[in-house]
Order: sequence, then C-alpha cells, then structure tokens
Amino acid sequence: MTSLRDLSLALRSGELSPVEHVRDVLDRLAADDHAAVVTLDAERALATAEERAAELAGHEWRGPLHGVAVGVKDLFDVVGLPTRAGSAVLADAPAATTEGPVVARLREAGAVIVGKLATHEFAYGPTGDVSATGSARNPRDPTRITGGSSSGSAAAVAAGHLPLALGTDTGASVRTPAALCGVVGLKPEYGTLSADGVFPLAETLDTVGILAADVHSASVAWDVLSRPDGTGGGIQPPGIRGAHVGVLVDDYWQAADPVLAEAVRESVRLLEKAGAEVFEIRTPFIGELAAAYAEIVGAEAYATHRDWLATRRADYQPETVERLEMVADRPAHAYVAAQRTRKRLTAEFRAAVSDMDVLVSATTRLRATPIGERKVDGVPVRSALLALTSPFNLTRWPSVSVPAPVAAGELPAGVQITGVRLEERGILRVAGALERD
Amino acid sequence: MTSLRDLSLALRSGELSPVEHVRDVLDRLAADDHAAVVTLDAERALATAEERAAELAGHEWRGPLHGVAVGVKDLFDVVGLPTRAGSAVLADAPAATTEGPVVARLREAGAVIVGKLATHEFAYGPTGDVSATGSARNPRDPTRITGGSSSGSAAAVAAGHLPLALGTDTGASVRTPAALCGVVGLKPEYGTLSADGVFPLAETLDTVGILAADVHSASVAWDVLSRPDGTGGGIQPPGIRGAHVGVLVDDYWQAADPVLAEAVRESVRLLEKAGAEVFEIRTPFIGELAAAYAEIVGAEAYATHRDWLATRRADYQPETVERLEMVADRPAHAYVAAQRTRKRLTAEFRAAVSDMDVLVSATTRLRATPIGERKVDGVPVRSALLALTSPFNLTRWPSVSVPAPVAAGELPAGVQITGVRLEERGILRVAGALERD
Repeated sequence: MTSLRDLSLALRSGELSPVEHVRDVLDRLAADDHAAVVTLDAERALATAEERAAELAGHEWRGPLHGVAVGVKDLFDVVGLPTRAGSAVLADAPAATTEGPVVARLREAGAVIVGKLATHEFAYGPTGDVSATGSARNPRDPTRITGGSSSGSAAAVAAGHLPLALGTDTGASVRTPAALCGVVGLKPEYGTLSADGVFPLAETLDTVGILAADVHSASVAWDVLSRPDGTGGGIQPPGIRGAHVGVLVDDYWQAADPVLAEAVRESVRLLEKAGAEVFEIRTPFIGELAAAYAEIVGAEAYATHRDWLATRRADYQPETVERLEMVADRPAHAYVAAQRTRKRLTAEFRAAVSDMDVLVSATTRLRATPIGERKVDGVPVRSALLALTSPFNLTRWPSVSVPAPVAAGELPAGVQITGVRLEERGILRVAGALERD
Repeated sequence: MTSLRDLSLALRSGELSPVEHVRDVLDRLAADDHAAVVTLDAERALATAEERAAELAGHEWRGPLHGVAVGVKDLFDVVGLPTRAGSAVLADAPAATTEGPVVARLREAGAVIVGKLATHEFAYGPTGDVSATGSARNPRDPTRITGGSSSGSAAAVAAGHLPLALGTDTGASVRTPAALCGVVGLKPEYGTLSADGVFPLAETLDTVGILAADVHSASVAWDVLSRPDGTGGGIQPPGIRGAHVGVLVDDYWQAADPVLAEAVRESVRLLEKAGAEVFEIRTPFIGELAAAYAEIVGAEAYATHRDWLATRRADYQPETVERLEMVADRPAHAYVAAQRTRKRLTAEFRAAVSDMDVLVSATTRLRATPIGERKVDGVPVRSALLALTSPFNLTRWPSVSVPAPVAAGELPAGVQITGVRLEERGILRVAGALERD
C-alpha cells in the first residue's frame, strides 16, 4: 500500500510531482479489477494537480495532503459528478453542483479528489457485495467480500491505489471494510465531521470517516479534517504506558473465527507489553443496546426510501428491497423506545467503563467471507460484520479498526479500539502501537 | 394578583415576614376552589420560611425570590411529595427522593416551594379539564377551562394565591393556560432549562416554563433560572424603539374569537406606538410544519404510556386513552419524516423571518371555553388552543404569552411574542410594553 508519509515527503521535495502521482493513481484506478471505482474525475484531478504543482514550484505547501490523491465514497457530493450511492435508482442523477465541508476541507488542504469509489447500495449493508456497480472484491482474495458499506474506499486503499479515502459509518461501514481489507478505518465521534453533502442512511447515526493505508495516514487526515482552521497539530508519537485498556469479554464481543480471536488476544498482549493496564469489561446490557440499532437504522432508512420504493422498486437490488420492506410497518413507538434505550444504555455503558481510556474488541466476528454468502459455518454474515461496531454508533464514541497481527498469507483481521476517555487522536495513538512496521 | 415587585420589597424590608407570607399562601391554596391545588407541602414550606426569615434577620438576602412562595406543576419531582401527573395511574406513586435542577435552583435562590399544582392528565391536553384531580376552573369564570396542561399553575397565579409557578410546555401548556387565565406564561427556548426530574410528555419538545402574575415576575424568575451561577443581571427597562415586529398574517394564525383578534390588533398598534417597525409575515409552510406536531408528540407520548395502557387502562381518563390509542399504530417512518419536516421547515421559517426581532400573534384562537366542551361555535377547542403555540415548540424558539388589552369584564386574551433575533429577556421586554399598569 501507499504510505502517506513517504508520498507526502516525495511530493514536497519535488522527487515526485503531483501530476505524476495523480496520473499514476488515475491509471491504477482505471485498471482496477475489484469493482472499487465508480467514476473518475480525471480531467479536473489533473488540472488540480497542475495547480498544486505550480504552488510547490513557488514554495507554497498546504500541508501533508498537498498534491495527494484522495478518493471518496459515492455518497459524497463532488461538484461535477453524479452521486449514485451504488444504486440504479440514481442512475440518472445529475452532476452535483455543491459539495460538503469535508470534501471542501480536503481540497483546501491540497488533496486532489480523483473520483468516486463504490458503496454497498445506499450504504445499507456491511458486506459490500450488493451494488449497481457490482460486488466489490477484496484485494486480499478477490473471491471474497470487501465488507461494506465503504467497499470501494477500503478496496482502493488496500489495493495500493491511493493512501486515503473518505467513507461513512452508520453501523460498521468504515471499520468493517477496513478490517476485512486490512487497512485502517476511523469512525470519529458522531457529529465531529459534518455529514452535509453526503447521502444519508440514518441521520442519527451517520458518521463521516476515513480509510487509510496506515495509522499515520489516518492521523494526518484526521488532523486536517478536525482542524478546519488549518492549525495542524503534528502527529504525536505512540505511547500508551499506563493507559487503561478495557477488553470486552462477554460472549457477545467474541469473534467466531479463531484466527481473529487469537489476533485480538495478541493485540491485547502487545498493548500490555507496551505498558498498558488491561481490564476485563462486562457489558450485560449489550444485547438490549444492540437491538436498538436495527430499529433506528431501519426506520430512518425506510423513511428516506419509502417514496422511491413505491415508484422505482425494480431499480433497487433485491436484497435492499427485502431489507427495507421488512421494516416498513414498524411502529413509531418502537423507534422512540429504541432512541430512549440508546440514550439510557449509553449512560450506563459510560458509567461502567468510565475509568477506561479505550475499549478493545475484534472489529468483526468473521474475516472476509465469500461474495454473496449470507451464512458461513452457521454464522450469519451480516450480523457478524455489524454486531461489534454498531454499539459505538449508538454510543457515538470514536472508534478505529486497525489490522491486527496475523500469520503471513492469512486474511486480514481487524481490531477495534474505541475511545472512552480518549478522543480520536488518542485512539489512533493506541492503534499505532498495534501496527507492524 | 400578587406582584412580585411589591412582595419582594416587603419581604426584604421586613414589612412582611416569609413565615407570614408562606402561611397566607398555604391558607389561600388550602381554600382554593378552582381545582388548582394537588398537594401542599405545608410543614416543610413553613420550616423553610423560618430559615429564610432567620437569614433576613441576619441581613442575608438571596435575591428577589428570598422567602417567596412558589408552586410547581405536578410533573416536577419535589422531595417528599409524590409526582402524580394528574393521573390515577400514579395514585400510589411514592414520594420523590430527588428533584431536578430547576426546582433546586429556585430553592437556592430563596424561593419556598409550597406544593404541587394541577395538570391536565400527563400533560397531554391543552384544555386542563381532564385530570384525576378534577377539571381546573378558570378564576375569571369558574364555569370555563383554565387551558392546559399547566392548569393549576395558571389558575393559582390568576387567583392571586402566589406570584409564580412552574409549568411545562410541549405544545401549548404554559402559554395557553396563561392566555386563558390572564397571566404571563414564558416558554424558553427548548433545552435552556433542564427537564430532568420532570415527568415527560414528548422529550424532543418538552420545555420547562414559568407562569407569573406579570412580566416583571416572569423576568425575575427567568433571571434566576437561566443564571445558575447567581450572577443576576437586573431587569432591563422596556424599550422597543426600532424593533422589527413581524405580524403573522396568514389565515392559519388568526383568532376565531373577534375580541381576541381585536386584542392582537390593538397590541400591534401599541408596539408601533412604542416605536416598533411592524412587518406582515407570511408562512406558506405552516400547515405542513404544524402537521408534524401531532406525529411527534403522539409517538413519544404513546411510547411512554404503552405498557401502562396494557395494564392500567381503566386508571386513565377516557379522553386520554382515546387520544393515546388513536396514535398507537402510527408507523416509524412517519415519525422520522415528521422530525425531518420539523428541521427543514424550521430552517425555512427562520430564513423567512431572519430580519425580525419578534413575531406576534394571538396565543390561542379562542378565549376560555366552557369546561368539557370540545367544539364552540363550530371551532374545535383543542386545536384552537394548540395551533398557534405548537409551531414554536417545533422551531424551539422562545415564546411568551402576555395578557392583551380587552374591555373591562371581558375574558382574558393572550398575545404571543416569539423571539427570532431576541432571546427570552428580549421577548419579555417586548411583552412588558403591552402590559397595563
């Protein structure tokens, strides 16, 4: 994969020009065979790269993203490109005429938006294999899913096409594809990055996030996006001595895949070795909390799609229709109760772990499964890819998936580090301690 | 009615002792014949009055509420008293062991909580005549409703029992009874006063508010409650020269009662005479916005009462059961859509009136109607008492009802002043310009 550290240095020093870099990325994306790419913005990207190159020639440097190619999930509006959200329902969507603050901030910071990356249809699924643009294929094994819904963003980064991509995470959609593809996926605390100009799945849970080749790249992107005044802040060195690490030990949090379970144990050992204090955390309320997720996401998603389901039903992928129609008649009181459960159990969860800096678990219960399969060794795939991540959309806490140590040749395993006392920079620092050089 | 200005002065100067004052209020409340009073906290109130008196004797003065008797709607938890919310469902409720920050702040400021005042059952109605404690009766005409749901708070203040009472306002419940009883009712901006320790009706709309004998009393209470650090701030003199006053002119906003319509016109003339610039405001979206109200309040209220309706149905008043069960099967997508409509049209409303300091309309479409009647001269009573106030629960803007000028002997008419550029102190200042000496 492309390391942003090396890339950024090469661009700043003039060793590599933004135009060469962007042209190379565009070529790679054009040749991609993982169904990761939806639309390229080649002409505009190259023109922007020329501008960034001219700035460098005049000794103007916008920061570590200056001239860096970035891709965005096809839920983000990008001026001049349609937003199709992985659906034939939006096949005729006009080119967007505005874009949201996150895309705008990337451009200001010097990033070159090269195009749109695939998404599970309307972001409503953690597998990534249901989309009008085809089933995204995992670069580590093209017969397997990427995970979703930010399928193309994870695949493009994992394939080494680019160091950074934007995704969204409503219940899993940044962290799960990051885990399955072996990249880093950061879901910030709900609300810290604006979701304006992003097609919604469920507005009370939707979170803009970052997929990146490594923790350093994710940290740079987070610094840029979280500091709109451009004050930067520099990357802090890893250092977790004395940190309180809570390991989620209830059955609910356990991986079904033994390689994944061992990877989590090994990650905890690494953190302990690095000086962290490890605690076992029990969450007896987790079943009740997790049940609120489907109620909330279902109601909000169905409310968005109800009119289209009446008029454009045939344009949806069959699984999407089935899942949306399954929740069509849910009562309002159940939705209201789910939101109350979310608030009440978030408070209970926080009280139970208030002395922890971070919580650790697997990101998913399974590693990448074969495309199209919905049950593997008796384990339901969708819930296996959603159950460990969605609780932290409900609590709104920041959470990052980082590749955990596995034997050579094994499919990637993601470990999830969730912030309680620590915010995004803090959990990235902990994640960094798990990264292999 | 009791003016807080005179009362506060008499208490501070020693002309009237807190004990005499509180005993007098307790006597009046015990003899009340408007079904305004639910529970008196006589022993504790007198003991507190003794403490406040001792402080005054030692030249310690907590501010303008020092030693002042205050009543609270029976939705607020008060230590030692049950919270029954006007319902036989809570006939056996235990005494509360904690109380919320608003009650606590009143106590810190020297107020003496004398007891609980009546509410429409579970605050779910703007008439005030449906309650396990009986139909509240309007002190201006005991055959007529007080309005609700803060029926007892409005009646007790209007009857001159006390200068101040706490209420809650989800769609009308402070402003409408204030209007019908001829007192001042302030609904602050949503979220500015904590609703902790208050029985909820609909959590995304519920607002703690103040009923007061006059604008000065309401302003003093607002200062105390909005400045938990006790920094005070002093009451600013009325002064509205140059203020932009938007008069809501669509049919939707018009009173059905001609006396009320003329009272609003006269109020606008008074404001113009005081130097305000008056503008006509049209709100073509108001029907769509208002329709979101029933969807939101219905779903949230039903979610609260669903289990009790299954087990304690006979303990509810029949009208409450009928209204709750009417919304039992509303779908979740309609609730989600209503919340989206609320947000979208609030933005549209704000854009349409962004140059206004305040908006003016009647508080209600009818003045106090006969107890138990649901249609008067062909006008449905509940919507007449809710339609003009609930839009500002949806937008969350601060809003106050102040008695408008009517001929002697006429039933009171409330004018509603809603803040756009102005916040609570600002709308109270405008309301003050309408007050008769």
